Amino acid sequence: MDDLLERLRAGLPPETLITDPEVMVSYARDMASFCAVGSPAVVVLPRTVEQVQHVMRTATALRVPVVPQGARTGLSGAANASDGCVVLSLTRMDRILEISPVDRIAVVEPGVVNAALSRAVAEHGLYYPPDPSSWETCTIGGNIGTASGGLCCVKYGVTAEYVLGLEVVLADGRLLSTGRRTAKGVAGYDLTRLFVGSEGSLGIVVKAVLGLRPKPPPQLVLGAEFGSAAAACEAVCAIMERGHTPSLLELMDRTTVRAVNALGNMGLPETTEALVLVAFDTPDPAADLAAVGEICRAAGATEVVPADTPAESELLLQARRMSLTALEKIASATMIDDVCVPRSRLGAMLDGTAAIAERFGLTIGVCAHAGDGNTHPVVCFDHTDPDESRRALESFDAIMALGLELGGTITGEHGVGTLKKEWLARELGPVGIELQKGIKHTFDPLNILNPGKLF
Amino acid sequence: MDDLLERLRAGLPPETLITDPEVMVSYARDMASFCAVGSPAVVVLPRTVEQVQHVMRTATALRVPVVPQGARTGLSGAANASDGCVVLSLTRMDRILEISPVDRIAVVEPGVVNAALSRAVAEHGLYYPPDPSSWETCTIGGNIGTASGGLCCVKYGVTAEYVLGLEVVLADGRLLSTGRRTAKGVAGYDLTRLFVGSEGSLGIVVKAVLGLRPKPPPQLVLGAEFGSAAAACEAVCAIMERGHTPSLLELMDRTTVRAVNALGNMGLPETTEALVLVAFDTPDPAADLAAVGEICRAAGATEVVPADTPAESELLLQARRMSLTALEKIASATMIDDVCVPRSRLGAMLDGTAAIAERFGLTIGVCAHAGDGNTHPVVCFDHTDPDESRRALESFDAIMALGLELGGTITGEHGVGTLKKEWLARELGPVGIELQKGIKHTFDPLNILNPGKLF
Repeated sequence: MDDLLERLRAGLPPETLITDPEVMVSYARDMASFCAVGSPAVVVLPRTVEQVQHVMRTATALRVPVVPQGARTGLSGAANASDGCVVLSLTRMDRILEISPVDRIAVVEPGVVNAALSRAVAEHGLYYPPDPSSWETCTIGGNIGTASGGLCCVKYGVTAEYVLGLEVVLADGRLLSTGRRTAKGVAGYDLTRLFVGSEGSLGIVVKAVLGLRPKPPPQLVLGAEFGSAAAACEAVCAIMERGHTPSLLELMDRTTVRAVNALGNMGLPETTEALVLVAFDTPDPAADLAAVGEICRAAGATEVVPADTPAESELLLQARRMSLTALEKIASATMIDDVCVPRSRLGAMLDGTAAIAERFGLTIGVCAHAGDGNTHPVVCFDHTDPDESRRALESFDAIMALGLELGGTITGEHGVGTLKKEWLARELGPVGIELQKGIKHTFDPLNILNPGKLF
Repeated sequence: MDDLLERLRAGLPPETLITDPEVMVSYARDMASFCAVGSPAVVVLPRTVEQVQHVMRTATALRVPVVPQGARTGLSGAANASDGCVVLSLTRMDRILEISPVDRIAVVEPGVVNAALSRAVAEHGLYYPPDPSSWETCTIGGNIGTASGGLCCVKYGVTAEYVLGLEVVLADGRLLSTGRRTAKGVAGYDLTRLFVGSEGSLGIVVKAVLGLRPKPPPQLVLGAEFGSAAAACEAVCAIMERGHTPSLLELMDRTTVRAVNALGNMGLPETTEALVLVAFDTPDPAADLAAVGEICRAAGATEVVPADTPAESELLLQARRMSLTALEKIASATMIDDVCVPRSRLGAMLDGTAAIAERFGLTIGVCAHAGDGNTHPVVCFDHTDPDESRRALESFDAIMALGLELGGTITGEHGVGTLKKEWLARELGPVGIELQKGIKHTFDPLNILNPGKLF
């Protein structure tokens, strides 16, 4: 370890290195519960590509694992430190290098905060869609590492759609350029997309070319209350089947609605079994909301309330965005699932989740990016009670098993990290895992990049 | 070779095998000129996944190269046979297995023709955007292999955006499932996107889950004539900079316009230096065209003619779609480039291409997916004249060098095949090529899948 620090110091300014154990502990983990956490040997906060290269060359020479980090808002333990590792925090590489309205791209360093980029491009009439709930604090590098989603995906897609090209420091310190800054390009295998969602296991992203869109009109939101999850899901499916393109289509169940009211005094309707939020950012959102309101009523909505102004809409969105945090407050501990099923199976997924809650005698609140079929069942439990903890873990697993059974995936947007390693193997099967490991070996033959994550 | 045929026959019905040399010759090549072509040992036309597996197991056992093919409309030699290979034509696996309006997906076999899928989903009010010029004959498997583009990309993106999941027969005959049938999913590295554009070098796609969109309103097209390519490119950039989202944004130079008139008697304006076509499929396309018409006039358009009806629009599109074919008719031989540059550099690309034509004393017609910065300079020459042939080859290369210099890529949508192998190495550099080869080795350690293509 002395050798490690000595070598790192030889190529890095002193202020980039943290070795104080009390400070290091604050870099030890992301926001996932119940994932293993180790003690790093050192935390490095580089400011330049060359500094990142020095870290990786050193790590390769000494065979020391490196755990890359952004804002550590992840929910699967992918950014958790392992014992003796170098934590490589990219948060100080936070410059927006370029915004081009003609080319509709931004070139950024990995530590740029999502909201900072969104605001900067908005000044040019542009829009960077990916909007994970943590967008005010999470970084673009972290978004790329976890392939993060958000509320916008039902219309605008996920992070992967917006990453056009990358500069990456490889495990041995060499620099790789992937992709392009053009609208199209098919030169060789798509290495760019391989890095998106790779959870820091293939290389360290030090620069990204991101695609942008024209800023859409402000969205208008409608809330619809339903007497059952089944009816709400029927409405969601009908909206999509009729060819609507909402800018968001969300669902909160009764538990979530109550939790949000308790946390934020938001005045949501507590008697509803399922609250659906749908929005349009079209030229005439009120007309689109009227059409969708009719669909909701036909599916059995007990109440349909369109927001009249963007401000009212923003309040409803705030309520939705605080859902996970609110659910986390109603129990001493929570585990957050992230199962995504085909939209047509959303009703079966919600009914099945309710049955799992019943079977294990637990509260499981669900909020969902319903238009994408992406549910976040939050298993609430008392972690001081061993039996309840066991049941929580079993129900967390049962939810993923149900998702796979319905033709879905164990993770729509939160990633695998350490939390879902076993489940990744179940979803991909032995052939898939073998090829994934082969790719990992091609990029990182010494297995020093975030080892122990994914598989 | 007898052993090869014997082993293939042991697991395949007789009608799936072609060994007649005269018939086999018609399967020897795609539509690229000047790419090496070999003589296959056998052409196999399987109907089932199991038959494809039998072919790959046999090929692995005997170390025989396999060249997968769709409709052979490719433009880079990627589907060309090599001596003694098995040509594996997927054209008979042409079933559309499922269309789901709620999930907005189609599940298809690789031999489904692009236009057949487009028409089938249209009956459900859905839209499969990728529309290469060969869409009436090319197959989805070929589109996936080459990551093909088309006119729609400026609004709807390329094939890669629409491939959600795949079933792939690996080099050794094992079956791999990748991706998902859900709207989102981040379980492990994105192998699906790795196969898109891999030109049959990583595995044989035998099934694909494709994303669909709601069918948009019919598009309305406007034609704008310009006195110079520079003015036309200024208009293109201004249209995008002002936040418009056209459903196509194309450019044809004077040579292309005249070639199209000569071929199809289309009545395009022959005096124009550059004809820009722009379309909208928005709720009010006429209003959008009016706004864009103003931008064109401000950039110096000499004439701005909006189509009044979808039928008139279709005529203009037909003219654009026949551009490459028309240019091929004006000389005894042509070489088609596919350089994509950042949109902001489009003017420099066109001026530079004109300078190259001048320098080498050749006609080079250009049509372009201008909104994407994707140009198709077509080098016209007399292939019986050795000096002219040499100059053609040099200008073909000079155009790619110019594209790279302007921050672009050597291929926006046509792929690498054998035609641009050396240029792929120049674009990606040694680190990139090393990793690409590492991935190839992971999937195909014996190098039997379309060897000699890409790199």
